Amino acid sequence: MAGNSFGKIFKITTFGESHGIALGVIIDGVPPNIELTASDIQFELDRRKPGQSKITTKRQESDKVEILSGIFENKTTGTPLAFVIYNKDQKPEDYSKIKDIFRPGHADYTFLKKFGIRDFRGGGRASGRETVARVAAGAVAKKILRDKGINIVAYTLSVGDIKAKKIDFTVIEKNIVRSPDLDAAEKMIKKIEEVKAQKDSIGGVVETIIHGCPPGLGDPVFDKLDACLSHALMSIGSIKGIEFGSGFKCTEMLGSEHNGKMYIDGNKVKTVPNHTGGIAGGISNGEDIVIRLAIKPTASIGQQQQTVDVNSKSVTIEIDGRHDPCICPRVVPVAEAMVAITILDALLIQQIINPI
Amino acid sequence: MAGNSFGKIFKITTFGESHGIALGVIIDGVPPNIELTASDIQFELDRRKPGQSKITTKRQESDKVEILSGIFENKTTGTPLAFVIYNKDQKPEDYSKIKDIFRPGHADYTFLKKFGIRDFRGGGRASGRETVARVAAGAVAKKILRDKGINIVAYTLSVGDIKAKKIDFTVIEKNIVRSPDLDAAEKMIKKIEEVKAQKDSIGGVVETIIHGCPPGLGDPVFDKLDACLSHALMSIGSIKGIEFGSGFKCTEMLGSEHNGKMYIDGNKVKTVPNHTGGIAGGISNGEDIVIRLAIKPTASIGQQQQTVDVNSKSVTIEIDGRHDPCICPRVVPVAEAMVAITILDALLIQQIINPI
Amino acid sequence: MAGNSFGKIFKITTFGESHGIALGVIIDGVPPNIELTASDIQFELDRRKPGQSKITTKRQESDKVEILSGIFENKTTGTPLAFVIYNKDQKPEDYSKIKDIFRPGHADYTFLKKFGIRDFRGGGRASGRETVARVAAGAVAKKILRDKGINIVAYTLSVGDIKAKKIDFTVIEKNIVRSPDLDAAEKMIKKIEEVKAQKDSIGGVVETIIHGCPPGLGDPVFDKLDACLSHALMSIGSIKGIEFGSGFKCTEMLGSEHNGKMYIDGNKVKTVPNHTGGIAGGISNGEDIVIRLAIKPTASIGQQQQTVDVNSKSVTIEIDGRHDPCICPRVVPVAEAMVAITILDALLIQQIINPI
Amino acid sequence: MAGNSFGKIFKITTFGESHGIALGVIIDGVPPNIELTASDIQFELDRRKPGQSKITTKRQESDKVEILSGIFENKTTGTPLAFVIYNKDQKPEDYSKIKDIFRPGHADYTFLKKFGIRDFRGGGRASGRETVARVAAGAVAKKILRDKGINIVAYTLSVGDIKAKKIDFTVIEKNIVRSPDLDAAEKMIKKIEEVKAQKDSIGGVVETIIHGCPPGLGDPVFDKLDACLSHALMSIGSIKGIEFGSGFKCTEMLGSEHNGKMYIDGNKVKTVPNHTGGIAGGISNGEDIVIRLAIKPTASIGQQQQTVDVNSKSVTIEIDGRHDPCICPRVVPVAEAMVAITILDALLIQQIINPI
Repeated sequence: MAGNSFGKIFKITTFGESHGIALGVIIDGVPPNIELTASDIQFELDRRKPGQSKITTKRQESDKVEILSGIFENKTTGTPLAFVIYNKDQKPEDYSKIKDIFRPGHADYTFLKKFGIRDFRGGGRASGRETVARVAAGAVAKKILRDKGINIVAYTLSVGDIKAKKIDFTVIEKNIVRSPDLDAAEKMIKKIEEVKAQKDSIGGVVETIIHGCPPGLGDPVFDKLDACLSHALMSIGSIKGIEFGSGFKCTEMLGSEHNGKMYIDGNKVKTVPNHTGGIAGGISNGEDIVIRLAIKPTASIGQQQQTVDVNSKSVTIEIDGRHDPCICPRVVPVAEAMVAITILDALLIQQIINPI
Repeated sequence: MAGNSFGKIFKITTFGESHGIALGVIIDGVPPNIELTASDIQFELDRRKPGQSKITTKRQESDKVEILSGIFENKTTGTPLAFVIYNKDQKPEDYSKIKDIFRPGHADYTFLKKFGIRDFRGGGRASGRETVARVAAGAVAKKILRDKGINIVAYTLSVGDIKAKKIDFTVIEKNIVRSPDLDAAEKMIKKIEEVKAQKDSIGGVVETIIHGCPPGLGDPVFDKLDACLSHALMSIGSIKGIEFGSGFKCTEMLGSEHNGKMYIDGNKVKTVPNHTGGIAGGISNGEDIVIRLAIKPTASIGQQQQTVDVNSKSVTIEIDGRHDPCICPRVVPVAEAMVAITILDALLIQQIINPI
Repeated sequence: MAGNSFGKIFKITTFGESHGIALGVIIDGVPPNIELTASDIQFELDRRKPGQSKITTKRQESDKVEILSGIFENKTTGTPLAFVIYNKDQKPEDYSKIKDIFRPGHADYTFLKKFGIRDFRGGGRASGRETVARVAAGAVAKKILRDKGINIVAYTLSVGDIKAKKIDFTVIEKNIVRSPDLDAAEKMIKKIEEVKAQKDSIGGVVETIIHGCPPGLGDPVFDKLDACLSHALMSIGSIKGIEFGSGFKCTEMLGSEHNGKMYIDGNKVKTVPNHTGGIAGGISNGEDIVIRLAIKPTASIGQQQQTVDVNSKSVTIEIDGRHDPCICPRVVPVAEAMVAITILDALLIQQIINPI
Repeated sequence: MAGNSFGKIFKITTFGESHGIALGVIIDGVPPNIELTASDIQFELDRRKPGQSKITTKRQESDKVEILSGIFENKTTGTPLAFVIYNKDQKPEDYSKIKDIFRPGHADYTFLKKFGIRDFRGGGRASGRETVARVAAGAVAKKILRDKGINIVAYTLSVGDIKAKKIDFTVIEKNIVRSPDLDAAEKMIKKIEEVKAQKDSIGGVVETIIHGCPPGLGDPVFDKLDACLSHALMSIGSIKGIEFGSGFKCTEMLGSEHNGKMYIDGNKVKTVPNHTGGIAGGISNGEDIVIRLAIKPTASIGQQQQTVDVNSKSVTIEIDGRHDPCICPRVVPVAEAMVAITILDALLIQQIINPI
């Protein structure tokens, strides 16, 4: 009810605050007999961790995962996996001077209205740091999906008005902005360094591709696969929009154009072009699922901003701290994690209805 | 699990197929002691019903609601409301000739892959007709919210490349395309008639405004208010994208521009401009919540299309029938319904955490 | 949340009041491609319906089920089944004279405290009439289980101090008290007629056997199979206790006696004696699951009783009406229904974990 | 779905195995602004911990709780509480010699059938050690309820055929068997020592009283308060039966006797005698809620037993280890915890429906 769980069969429940003792996750509904080691998890956490490059926050966290339960002799047992990641570089004192001030673009004011109490240490539970637990859980889902031939790849499609012009999966992890186009990457990095120098931040688009998803996943009514993926992805902070396939461009198309053609290719039913983005009527059709996320510029900036405090006084604020000038490269592993959790959940549900 | 329920406290469960006997909904978690009559429901159903104008499907359904339970002496009792709407104008025979063919842009193929069985009568459960039950349930939510000063209004912002240039709430229900701009409405209607004459269809954008929503609704992690609204709205057929506030435009903005200013206005904390669209960190901040939906062109068109049948043969199809050339005006009440259900649910949850 | 749903995969949601327009149920999560007709449902409803013998209430209800959705060409489609049963013999006027009085042993007072409103017509939603929807849903579950070799049989084990001395399944439906022992049945019926003549009522024990349940159903922690069955069965009105296998007798046993022996019989692992009642550590072990329910005497009696009214005045009440002097024979099909729903749900969940 | 969560609003999710690294719990839905310290939790853990007396297992665990999240400046924030208890005295090697043998009365065989894999270390997740997480969560619920005047007390009512003859709450924690009757306690302890000397075990009855529960908690249909309490309590290992108020004795009563009288006492509606055990029609009526649990003799005994192994061979087994000869005194805090979680959940739900 309080919204710290996600998923139905493969169900994650997370805990922890930005500058608290630890963050973590319990995963219930993990299939038994899956080989799993801490390094499977650590690999994904390293992709998300702060301080990994000159364009990310300088906060230093090793984000080392400890597995507390659910594994016996290197295999899952079907009982809950529990992962914990202790905070090492928490500096709650950094926040004491803004403890009574509402930071623009942040959840400070809204959190206080919701709970009647506020944990001002870097946003507490409302911090993006919360996503470390999602990435840990997503690593398990990704591993299980990969073994079934389902691969999930996300990347930074644009930063500001700089767009990737080609999609080369092999270069994504070879540049610090995680662009699939090395030329664009260079420009994006330069742009991010510029806004950083101006104590500002910038937005971008992260695109995710799910390749190898079998047809038949998702439900026809409330739990359409795109609806569930939207829930999953829009629950990541900083996201103001999501689109599938043709996305907002569909609004200017005719049906004769948008529908495309269906044909048989070997033993598969294909639809081209893939305007629906791999989902028809809420159910996967076997094509690549294509999702784009609108990422807003990071709210924490060093420039002076106009705001109010808890006593309803007008004040100004300059947030000096350790913040990401563009969060896109670090959203990439988080988006993959949330997508993996959603797709695995749909796959497990389908095992009841009409096993694939 | 099978995805025919939505909501946590105010929870709806729907049933029924396009050309079956009846559609309906059970609403569990309705607050007791609310005055409610069938006409409260019927008003909204009439806004959604087919055959209401020259630019909607010609299917004739009175969509008359019957209340089976949950009301005693004109008041809700806190027990489940059950509504049923019997189908009058079902013509399953219209579909017999396409019963073995997969219609492009429809869920025919994916539904069969999911369930291993297909109800070909107009898509069965996968039909947009299913939304009649949502609108019936949404009418209850809208009434409860209205009494608390929360109003939800949706309208057709654009059809193809024709965009409303002003937002005048008073004219929305006075034109058949439900545009907030009468000049644009005229052009939109003309455009829709043109594509209809070409046996084609066209997309558009539906925008929804939630006015009067108190700060504090939604959760900071998985059940962010925008994530739940996205789940609710993306579960309506034909939608390929959703955005809040600045939406995809945020991706080209700087933080200093996007954050805006916070100030005190009377006893309220205001944020201008409203780039976040009324939701900060997943929790409502008291500003108008602004949502835009990308509606694809209706999949059912009369033009000849290339497709395949259940025996993996290539075939062509011409769908003559009673279809909406642009579904936007009929999405309007459905969007309002799903938004109302989601907001009321968040409001009821907040009654436990920190009553408003 | 409001407690009108039960089950996780095979999930029922019910509605309706004792003297309202109709009662019914939506079943979500029904496996597709199951042959099903109204007569499958009607058979079970007839076993539960009022007025079936001289020892049941005289209310006359044909309890005719109508199937509104979820079936196409006599097969389930995987979409929600909706059943409705219209009330024919409602007499709300019978209740007008007690509308301000709290009947002892009934939910009148507690319902008012819960909802702040009271539907006095025969208890409204709190009436045992609500179970008609459970039996309709249970009929579907029973059919599916029967096809898998799982059979559920309930019977009246005792009425007052008269106990069945043998268990002969073949005679249960051949006597109106549904006893597995015809000699005991005769005495039970005589006893019930006696208490009825005295405007009184009497309790009894209903026992349920689940035969053919495979090992592996249920979960080791909160959703132990016995815990879920207890939830299901204790949610039937009039039940004050439940026990499995040895039940309360286990409290006077030694471990060496209670544990029993395990041995191999063919390809099965057997445990004798079956003190655990077919469930070990919350998971079925393949033995018969044996459950006993303590049924209290019906609360509605014609004798004068001391009570209070809504104005806190002391009053007396004599409930003349159409009530069951012993509810055991009519609990039998309801118990079977709730057990079937629970076992089928566990079976479907197990299809994900370790398919049988 | 996999059954490691319990509760709807106040929702606990647990993890951990008997001889694994740690056990713990996440509590979601904790009301904000509650003062809470580790000592509140530790107090209850100490009541449950092994090795506390000569009649409990000799396993030595300090069961020290660490709070990882959800508290800021000694108050709950409304975000998830996470508690972890590291295992100190795990001895998995004790179990290596029985790793292929199914212990009679245990979940060894059924667990393997469920998951297709077995963690033989003391039953792993199926061990009673799992309840340490429940007690930690229950401590939070008990504290919140106590502040609202709701008190929960459990005690050992009988051991074998030795029954407490009086109920004196003040002596319960003053004797190691947790009997409310010191004379009976002495005999119970002697009896337990006798069966222990014989390498055997013995059962008993644990009774729980909920005092101060307001009327109006629980739901009229599936989530009757007694149904939810039964689910909660029957999910504790070793329990073969549960009864409320008159319990199984009601089956031999007449309605005129069982109903009792209702009258006004001050501003309260009272029912005497309390045969319903504080719950009428599934909803609390303000009287004490009275629950009795049938606890079977501990399955682990040192005597030689006949059983089978994973290769379907007949074998004998003698379980030497550190086991409780009578688990009743250690069930007491677990029962209180599960009751507290259930009652608090019902109370929070009622805040939405009709705030008390």
